[in-house]
Amino acid sequence: MSKGEDTRREIIGRAYSIASEVGLEGLTLGVLAERTNLSKSGLFAHFKSKEALQLEVLEKAIELFIGNVVMPALTKPRGEPRVKALIERYLLWIRGAEARDKKGGCFFMSLAHEYDDRPGPLRDRLVQSQKDWYGTVARAARLAVKEGHFRTDLDDAQFAYEFVGVGMVYEQAHKLLADPSAEKRARTAFEGLMARSRRGRK
Amino acid sequence: MSKGEDTRREIIGRAYSIASEVGLEGLTLGVLAERTNLSKSGLFAHFKSKEALQLEVLEKAIELFIGNVVMPALTKPRGEPRVKALIERYLLWIRGAEARDKKGGCFFMSLAHEYDDRPGPLRDRLVQSQKDWYGTVARAARLAVKEGHFRTDLDDAQFAYEFVGVGMVYEQAHKLLADPSAEKRARTAFEGLMARSRRGRK
Repeated sequence: MSKGEDTRREIIGRAYSIASEVGLEGLTLGVLAERTNLSKSGLFAHFKSKEALQLEVLEKAIELFIGNVVMPALTKPRGEPRVKALIERYLLWIRGAEARDKKGGCFFMSLAHEYDDRPGPLRDRLVQSQKDWYGTVARAARLAVKEGHFRTDLDDAQFAYEFVGVGMVYEQAHKLLADPSAEKRARTAFEGLMARSRRGRK
Repeated sequence: MSKGEDTRREIIGRAYSIASEVGLEGLTLGVLAERTNLSKSGLFAHFKSKEALQLEVLEKAIELFIGNVVMPALTKPRGEPRVKALIERYLLWIRGAEARDKKGGCFFMSLAHEYDDRPGPLRDRLVQSQKDWYGTVARAARLAVKEGHFRTDLDDAQFAYEFVGVGMVYEQAHKLLADPSAEKRARTAFEGLMARSRRGRK
């Protein structure tokens, strides 16, 4: 890896940390210059525009999510073990246990409200990443049907919808409300979802 | 009502619309002055600080939520009818059907990500309003137990947690993902929650 590429990755890493705190729109070149000891013009040499930088930070977040949540679950056997690994990793991601952001919270959930009203390439990429995530969960549920763990009439997209819902309310209860029961409640909600998805239940 | 009080309410109404689009932090006195035809100094006569204005806009949002979601449900009979009215009004609020914001979305969910990292009176008031909302749903569920509709061992706080979760994922699926099945999926998730809360089910 070249030194230029090294520097570029270092900058994106810092930019990601800043965006985790203040959102992508709050990621100014001024603040970034301060924290990287690079001049604004130096930063412009790496990124042609603020939007190009924002898109790279979003790609970085997607890469981290896939590396920390999706990939580890894919090493688990198909069926329930993989579905359970997905929720464990998802809750861990939301808690922010990878030292990404000490206070926790999901980068994508924050972004959703920053960009739901702003059409453009950032919103498009965010929407695609979220659809991919719902799709990953739905596929894991479908495999659990094939493995004989889940019932054959399971609606895997509905499963994914409710699975993501468990994570979203967990994020709010954990981070905004600082509810000490947040994790217990998320696990109970997930157990309920699993129970009604299993074969032999309706 | 005095003319001054009229003007003040008018300003808060406009400020609420702006904040629905750009968030409370993006609510600058400059933009507000433009849209109300008042000078910045005129606005300062009504609100001592940006934070005072933001707090009043948040109170306005809470008042609208109570008036559009909570109060209409309280006119319904205790038990299932009231719980169902709460979800109907909540989904309607999230769709933004009261012409508040044509694109829909929940004011409080956006705010949650704006303020979860910012301690202060705005965050405190937001947290209290959300706890009140969870509490309203939990009370409705407890009354449904008393009416004999829900099972006696129902955990009403868990019910509220999952109820809010249905709304949160609905908001994302409806607004960010523009998923045409969003409402159907929210109703299916809610029906599932109702089914497992009813007497005679486990």
